[in-house]
Amino acid sequence: MFVILVYDVGEKRVNKVLKKCREYLTWVQNSVLEGELSEGNLKKLKFEIGKIIKTGEDSVIIYSFQSTKYSTREVMGLTKNSQDIFV
Amino acid sequence: MFVILVYDVGEKRVNKVLKKCREYLTWVQNSVLEGELSEGNLKKLKFEIGKIIKTGEDSVIIYSFQSTKYSTREVMGLTKNSQDIFV
Repeated sequence: MFVILVYDVGEKRVNKVLKKCREYLTWVQNSVLEGELSEGNLKKLKFEIGKIIKTGEDSVIIYSFQSTKYSTREVMGLTKNSQDIFV
Repeated sequence: MFVILVYDVGEKRVNKVLKKCREYLTWVQNSVLEGELSEGNLKKLKFEIGKIIKTGEDSVIIYSFQSTKYSTREVMGLTKNSQDIFV
């Protein structure tokens, strides 16, 4: 499935969260990663993130879509990291 | 359609972009807004954003999904702005 992950975490944990997420997804913009993930890998990623973040301070939103059919991804301005899954 | 908008823009333009996007979408996290938008309103929003951003410096990614069927939205940690469209 296609996953979009956005995070807003404390400065001390940002690098750790980004490093972990980059093992599974592609960085596309400040605090935003996306990519195709199996159900199993998404579970693993959530488990890993859960070990890093402070749930009372940090926020991670994970959108997952079974299909990217009938959907679009448009970039206005700079493409910080090209990602043409939607083509 | 369901829209997720993420932005990474110059400091001078952040407030303007956020203010404009909030006319159409719900702020859910730092640099992330989401919500249901008609095709027409999405076009208007893009036009408005285009007048604000500097395309050579700023980056806005707009994901739009015809349906949120077969998709999930999960928050780990803090819910900065509750948004239960997926229920």
